[in-house]
Amino acid sequence: MIRITLIGSGNVAQHLIKTFAKSEGIEIGQVFSRKKESLLHLVDSDKIVTDVSDLIDADLYVIAITDDAISEVSAQLPFQNRLVVHTSGTSSIAVLNSKNRRGVFYPLQTFSKAKPVDFSIIPICLEAESEADYTILETVAKSISNAVFSISSEQRKALHVSAVFVNNFTNHLYQIGQEICEEHQVPFEILKPLIEETADKIKTLKPIDAQTGPAKRHDSTTIEAHLNYLTNQTQKDIYKILTQSIQHNGKTL
Amino acid sequence: MIRITLIGSGNVAQHLIKTFAKSEGIEIGQVFSRKKESLLHLVDSDKIVTDVSDLIDADLYVIAITDDAISEVSAQLPFQNRLVVHTSGTSSIAVLNSKNRRGVFYPLQTFSKAKPVDFSIIPICLEAESEADYTILETVAKSISNAVFSISSEQRKALHVSAVFVNNFTNHLYQIGQEICEEHQVPFEILKPLIEETADKIKTLKPIDAQTGPAKRHDSTTIEAHLNYLTNQTQKDIYKILTQSIQHNGKTL
Repeated sequence: MIRITLIGSGNVAQHLIKTFAKSEGIEIGQVFSRKKESLLHLVDSDKIVTDVSDLIDADLYVIAITDDAISEVSAQLPFQNRLVVHTSGTSSIAVLNSKNRRGVFYPLQTFSKAKPVDFSIIPICLEAESEADYTILETVAKSISNAVFSISSEQRKALHVSAVFVNNFTNHLYQIGQEICEEHQVPFEILKPLIEETADKIKTLKPIDAQTGPAKRHDSTTIEAHLNYLTNQTQKDIYKILTQSIQHNGKTL
Repeated sequence: MIRITLIGSGNVAQHLIKTFAKSEGIEIGQVFSRKKESLLHLVDSDKIVTDVSDLIDADLYVIAITDDAISEVSAQLPFQNRLVVHTSGTSSIAVLNSKNRRGVFYPLQTFSKAKPVDFSIIPICLEAESEADYTILETVAKSISNAVFSISSEQRKALHVSAVFVNNFTNHLYQIGQEICEEHQVPFEILKPLIEETADKIKTLKPIDAQTGPAKRHDSTTIEAHLNYLTNQTQKDIYKILTQSIQHNGKTL
């Protein structure tokens, strides 16, 4: 049985609490939150601590808080030489205070409070400073997910930048599509099966092989018509730069 | 029984042939293709015609060819006052020659030859010049899809521009994500569940409500780190313009 203490009460912390609670071989020791109320729907009151000095022994401490606070919180922990990890895609393993054994436990997914997630398919990227610690993290990760990867802090940077493109920026393109539809009284619903198929295609095709459309075809008549049709200058600029990038195959212009 | 003649042999034509062939209430009369061989795997040889003068009577003629050729081919049809539609997202109903009754039958999806599609969930956008013709198109569309919409040529323009954003441009962002991973020896596989979840989220959330990430949070430390990390100038430019657009909420800068 691996005893885990969670530090944090946000989206990631809450999803991890729910998942660990259901997992065989894992026991949630304590959960640290500045406000007790934010976790009472998930955790027994006597397991929630609001003062770091009340933290007791655990096999693993998981810090799931905003990037800016990881360094400070890890320094405040009133013990040393225990295994302490953060869950961030952007922070290096080195932001954790070196008085403890350090690691990273990064579930690569976009979490909303409202939407339940199936952890078994979420990739978990692990990093540790020793093989023994890596084995502990791997045991924990494999108890909740079928997709566990050893990823260095350097590789994690690449993953996080990529994630911004395929998640944040993609979602913004959905938003632009929705706004164009709204402006012209067309239901955005009509585009949802296309959005789904676009994501589905790259399960079997490389993105470059799945590319279609006027940019790819160098269909300048359609491209001109679309640019004339758009009334928003930002949308025009985004249309132009992505069209050029497709045509130059991602190479620097 | 509605008898349909297909004109064309490309992706859309072939997917329609397969779907109509399975559909009750629809009979494929003839299929026109310049090269007989390209359709022999789908259609009996005696149904394939390579000369427009061999086209016989049908209730509906579906022109599924490249945009540039629709006008010319519709003018070459050796009959008049019959119902003739094209399947294009970009062309107006008016590109069809006016000697026939005109319409549009636009399945809004991205078709690859290799990948089978489930037509029942593909939105079909219809347009006709009379109610009687609209009814015919609606009967045909509903026999293959559960998502049938009346969409004018003007509305179809908005849909097509939106589709470029949510399909073509989104796929290109996937490509950029894949290239960043490749450059840093990280398996792109790790990002696929995130891509799927990103598309899945907007089934229940408006894109603007699903937005997360450093741009949304105005996290300038992470944004700067990402821009420094990227080595490709085009990727940097795309990162900047999409970050700005998210921060200005799609409003013109």
